[in-house]
Formats: sequence, C-alpha cells, structure tokens
Amino acid sequence: MTGQDRTLRIGVLGAGTVGTQVIRQLLERQDELEQRIGGHYTISAVAVRSLDAPRDPAIPTALLTTDAQSVVDGADVVVELIGGIHPARELIERALSAGKDVITGNKALLSEYQTEIFATGRRGGAETYYEAAVAAAIPIVRPLQDSLVGDKVNRVLGIINGSTNYILDQIDTRGITMEQALTEARELGYLEADPSADVDGYDAASKITILAGLAFHTHVPVESVYREGIGAVTLEQMQAAQAAGYVIKLLGIAERLVEGEDESVNVRVYPALIPRSHPLAAVRGAKNAVFVEAQAAGDLMFYGAGAGGAATSSTVLSDIVLAAKRILTGAPPQFITFEAHLPIAPIERITARFQITMRVADRPGVLAKIAEVFAAQDVSVARMSQEQAVEGASGATLIVVTHPATEGSLEQTVELLKNSDVVSEVVSVLRVEG
Amino acid sequence: MTGQDRTLRIGVLGAGTVGTQVIRQLLERQDELEQRIGGHYTISAVAVRSLDAPRDPAIPTALLTTDAQSVVDGADVVVELIGGIHPARELIERALSAGKDVITGNKALLSEYQTEIFATGRRGGAETYYEAAVAAAIPIVRPLQDSLVGDKVNRVLGIINGSTNYILDQIDTRGITMEQALTEARELGYLEADPSADVDGYDAASKITILAGLAFHTHVPVESVYREGIGAVTLEQMQAAQAAGYVIKLLGIAERLVEGEDESVNVRVYPALIPRSHPLAAVRGAKNAVFVEAQAAGDLMFYGAGAGGAATSSTVLSDIVLAAKRILTGAPPQFITFEAHLPIAPIERITARFQITMRVADRPGVLAKIAEVFAAQDVSVARMSQEQAVEGASGATLIVVTHPATEGSLEQTVELLKNSDVVSEVVSVLRVEG
Repeated sequence: MTGQDRTLRIGVLGAGTVGTQVIRQLLERQDELEQRIGGHYTISAVAVRSLDAPRDPAIPTALLTTDAQSVVDGADVVVELIGGIHPARELIERALSAGKDVITGNKALLSEYQTEIFATGRRGGAETYYEAAVAAAIPIVRPLQDSLVGDKVNRVLGIINGSTNYILDQIDTRGITMEQALTEARELGYLEADPSADVDGYDAASKITILAGLAFHTHVPVESVYREGIGAVTLEQMQAAQAAGYVIKLLGIAERLVEGEDESVNVRVYPALIPRSHPLAAVRGAKNAVFVEAQAAGDLMFYGAGAGGAATSSTVLSDIVLAAKRILTGAPPQFITFEAHLPIAPIERITARFQITMRVADRPGVLAKIAEVFAAQDVSVARMSQEQAVEGASGATLIVVTHPATEGSLEQTVELLKNSDVVSEVVSVLRVEG
Repeated sequence: MTGQDRTLRIGVLGAGTVGTQVIRQLLERQDELEQRIGGHYTISAVAVRSLDAPRDPAIPTALLTTDAQSVVDGADVVVELIGGIHPARELIERALSAGKDVITGNKALLSEYQTEIFATGRRGGAETYYEAAVAAAIPIVRPLQDSLVGDKVNRVLGIINGSTNYILDQIDTRGITMEQALTEARELGYLEADPSADVDGYDAASKITILAGLAFHTHVPVESVYREGIGAVTLEQMQAAQAAGYVIKLLGIAERLVEGEDESVNVRVYPALIPRSHPLAAVRGAKNAVFVEAQAAGDLMFYGAGAGGAATSSTVLSDIVLAAKRILTGAPPQFITFEAHLPIAPIERITARFQITMRVADRPGVLAKIAEVFAAQDVSVARMSQEQAVEGASGATLIVVTHPATEGSLEQTVELLKNSDVVSEVVSVLRVEG
C-alpha cells in the first residue's frame, strides 16, 4: 500500500463539452468519488486553447492554462480530452513516459497509434484507460479485456456510430428519404459541417479497429479496414428490407476467420441487412450497441448511449476512479498486448450472404439468364423476387438474396451482371448479417 | 512482481455441468490461458461427492477426491461450484481466511452471506470473484463494480431468470396457456422437479439482491425483497398486454428512492408490463438482460445467456484468469464494501403505474362507480377499457391503467374494488415498468 494519505493530482487536457462535465463532477461530487477511490484528489490544472473563451462558471479560472505540457508535468493522472492526433499523442506519451496514468477518449488517435502508445505505457510503467474511446457510456473495452479474458471471441458486430444509426432509423420508421434524413440530422446537430467521418464510416472504422485489438489481441491497422458508408442507402432499399423482415444498419464487424489450423482477422464497416428479430435491430435512434459472439459465452450484447457529453463523462470519471485506486493501492498497471499477431485477411476472403437489387428487362427468359450468371460463379441463390414495375420506369426490379458466398465471387458476379444485356442497372449490393 | 515463475495451484470444488466444462477448458486451452495470465497453473485437485459417479473422461481421475477441505488447503485459488449454503460457505471462508482467492457462482450463498464472506476476504487479504453468480455469461458484476464506479446508478431492471422468461415468451409468441408453457418448460429441462425457485421468483430475488449491493453499495437482505412469481400470469393477460403494446416479463428491480436529502433502496421481483419498444421487450426465449439507469451514463443494457454450462464456464474461466493475474502480479485484492448503508424502503413506498383487470357488472353507471373508487384513493386513471363480454361469462372485463400511484394507495383501492357491488372479481394487478 503506497501513500493512501497523499493527494492525487488530476490534470485535465481540454475543457470542451466532456471536459467541462468531468471537471464539474470531480468538484461537485468530490466526497462521494473520494470514498470510491479510498483517497483524496485535487484537480491540479486544466489546459485550454484560449483563456478568454466563454466557459461554465463552475470551472475555477485559476486552474486554466494554455501550457498543456505543464499540466502533464504537474499531474499524477492525466485526462486527455482534446482529441485529434497532435498534440494529443505527444502529451499522452509524455505522461506515460513519466509513469503517469492516462485516461483518454481519443478514438482517432488510438486507432492509429495504439501499439506505440501502449508500448510507451509499458516502458513508463503507466496504464492507459480508454473506455470512453469506443462507445461513450457503454462498457465494452473492459468487458472484452477482463470479463471475456478466459473465452475466445469469434465475432464483434457493432452499431458504433450514433449519427448514422439515427439517420437510418428515421428512414426506417418515418419513411423519409436519405436526403431528408441527412438534412434533419444536420439541423439537430447529429452531423458536423463535414459529415464524412460519420456518413462515410471513418468513425465506425476507428472504433471497430480498437474493439478488434481487444477481441483478438491483434493490432489491426485502420487502413486495412474495408469501409462503405451509408451514402448509397435509399428509402427504396429500406422498404424492400422491411418487406423481407430486415432492417438496414451500419455495422462495424471484426471477425476471426478459421481455416484448418490457420486463423486470421477481418475488420470491415458497411451498411447491412439484419433480421428484425436480431437484438441489434432493436437499437433505435442514436443509441449504440456492440454484439459479441464468443465461443463459450455465446451471444452477448452491450447497449447504451454511444455519444454525448454526459454519457462520455460517466466513463471518463469511472476511469479516473479506477486509475486513482490503482495508484493509491500500488496495484501494477495493466497493459494491452497484441501478442496474438493474427494476420489480417482482406475482404475478398469473407463469406457473406448478399442482397443484390437490379433493374432488369421485363420479358420472358430474363430470370433464367440471371440465374445462370450466379450459377456460373458458384454463387447459390436463396431467393429471387421480382417487384412490380414502377410507373414510368423501364423494366422491372429484381431482388436476389444469395446463400453464403465469398466477396470475391460475388464481386465477379456483379461485374458479369452489369455487362449482361438483360440487366440495365445494378442498383445496390448489401450484405445480410446476424 | 511476485513470483511469475511459480505455478499457481487451482483447486476446484464440484465437477457437475459447469465444473466439468471449466476443468476441460483449463486442460485443453492451457497454453492460451497461460499466455493471458502471464504465468503457469496446474489443477491441484477436484472435490466431488462420490468417486464412483460417471464422469467426462477428460477429467483425470487422479485429481478427484471427496475431501473438499484438502482441496482448499492445497490450492492457491479455489473455484467453488458445488452450490448451496453448506458446506460451500465454510469452504469459501476457509479459503479466504487463508488468503486464497475464491471464484464462485453461488447466488443463493452470496445473497444470504455476502457481507460475511466479503469481510472474511478482507481479513484474509483475498478477493472473491462472483461474475458467474448473477447472469452466467453476461458481464454485469464487473461493469457495475468498475465501469460505473464514477457514476450514480438509479435503477436496475433485470430479466434474470431464463426459465421464467422462456415460459412467458412462449405464452406471448405462441399463444399457449401458462399450464402448457409450464409443462413444456419442464419437459425441456428448463424447470427443476420443484420449480418454485424459478416460478416463484426466489432465484431472481437472490440475483437482484446481489446487483443491488453493487449498484447502491448497500447490503440488501434477501428477506427484504418483495416477491411475486409468474404463477398468476394468464394467456388472457398476455393477450391484453399485446393489444395495448406491452409484453409481460418477470423483472427483478433495484431502485434508489430519493426524497429531499434522504435516499433509500427498494428491491422487488414481480411480473410487469413493459412497452414493446423497450429494449428489455426484445429479450426472448431463455435469454437474460440487465437494464441499468445511471445518472450520467443514461440507459445501458447487458444482454446474453443467463444460464447454461458453457455460458457459466466462460465467466468462471475469465474470473480464474483475473485472479491468477492478480496473484502473479502482486496486485492488491479488491473488496466490495457496502459503505453507503442506505436504508431499505418497503414496497409500500414505491410509486408505479398499475394495470388492474377486473370482471364487472355489464350495466350503465358501472364505470362511473369504479372511477369514483380510484378518485377517492387519489389514484389517477390514465386509461379505462371495457372488453367485449366473453361468451358465457357473466358481466364484462374492465382494464384500468393508472398514472403513477403508491403501492399503498393502490392496495387500498384494490381492497375497495373487491368489496364494490359492481365488481365481481379483481382478476389481476400488474405494474407497468420501463
């Protein structure tokens, strides 16, 4: 037991939405949190970009400084809430090198540099707490790291971007178009001025990369993540999904592939059809959920708010309490190691069921011709359904659902369909998951 | 760092369904688990009731003994999987007193004696790991203990008995009667010969007591839990619930009550109506889920298999890995303390919405008379609906849903309804939650 009497100095980098709530609660709930910690703390300093910016009056101005390095140097525990790569990375590594525990919610940074950051922590003898970096309030980092440590995770499916889930849910429940849903989401503040991080799946890719590291003890470079955003999803597709008992969700998927003795990992982000009866289908609005398939535990799901100042502050505060307890009790730091070193499998190796929607000529013999294309690529067809021709449209809409097929053979099939003289357009290709 | 080279001795008490799977995996996956632990282990001995009982051939007979005390004495970590109060309690306390970490899934024991067991662990300097005692594979003990340590939990709602959830789900989805559902559940092995622990809510009461301790840092005696089983739920009630957009689930509820500066805790188990849109409504079959309402984190849900040998073995193995890591790295043991000492509030203090189903006389003026009874007790009515009189039945069926009312005033209202000359029978009183 080392120094239960000492007062732990907490340095906070950043006083934005989350930082403000964290500081507020550290001050307002100090007695209660100190009881949980079993020791005393003080906020030693708060680094901000400008001293003059308007702020919550609950934050003592005497704590503010623009010198972030001095905040790191004067603290025992560093809470990084400034985001971005620079100077967040340098400040975090400075803290860890000096043996100071770090709490961070920085998914962009971790998905790029987690190996380096964890290595610095190991050298410095300090732990990185990053529950807030994946799904805000939802405990998923620690469950994967600790609660499932004796099991073998085979697959992780996550609805891990609240904005896109909100948009798809509005299309599903209110029957509005993608354009309307995007406009509303922007007006409600669910999307940034540049919505690309959310809409194009970059944010989900960062998060699923971090989850893959925990699930498979393997570092997955974020560049290796296959990624499709929600931009191409249409109301028509959603309605077709509804009619077939499905809903379209943007999923981050990390999967262990097993071929004989060989194991590899594939990580991908795309909109997919999931059956209405699947627990992930009930994740509405801006909520998030992570569905975990483990060998012995079976199916697990972790559900909650995946964004927001209050939700994220809950996780950051819990991580602060855990770091403080660790330090005050003298417990050794825990390190994430990516010791499994599983190879990364490209998307072509994945087997999935597909739903292909295409516009086809409306004449006899078309179905047979299309069925031949699938057969020639060894892609087995589970269901074909021809929709009523839309008023004014030329030809008919044909929806084909396949049995499990490799991405590679499906891609070739789609190429052939595009060149077929009975297909006027391949409207969409969606995977079916869950 | 203390003795990474030493081989940790794991003693197992009990080789039933879970014990067998745990032992099998400890042997078959030894390399992988030792890598996670960062050290070596051996199964030192396995205590069984009879050496002659038929067993999985994977368990080396040389490890078996009927002398459970010697298994405790010869181990560094003790895995208790015999269940029941005696001799489980004595063996666990013997281990903890000697400074040996204990892994247990014994909900009956913990709900009765957790205070005593944790105190023994504190004196002996050993930790008790009991993730398996609440909801098998679902990580909920550690998330409440660690992931939410900086937040304030206000309510926990759990579907924490798989058998009763299976039964209610069959009534809901297949329209069978309670009698049929009970018979089928018994045939499928979901119910014991004496189904009382499940059907009457005793099992759920044990589990919600343990969750209440973690959520509110307060020991809740299992005798203080208000408890109603599912025995009185009928197909007719379920169908009425369906029609109104609800489903009936058996819930364990632990709730923080706040009146001014005063806080207290109420813990209860009963079948309740929950809206179809609530995440708990999507928990089908024998699955379990724990829904947590926290101040900053908002609503969280943890979902998965709440029973079964494989699911429980996953959790036990993870706890073994965590205990082994703790011991080998020299980390201090963590103790649960019930330092908040919140008073236990009786069910009469709870405010809930109620659905009262009654058979009433089918003549003018009856509704007004019944409305008067509610008004006289200050119970505000949200909805009254009179069902078509059933063929052959005398009178009509009236369903009243109230606004939030105290259990006390509702009880008095029901008494007055029973004595009213226009009510022939109060068929059921169900709370509405979520």
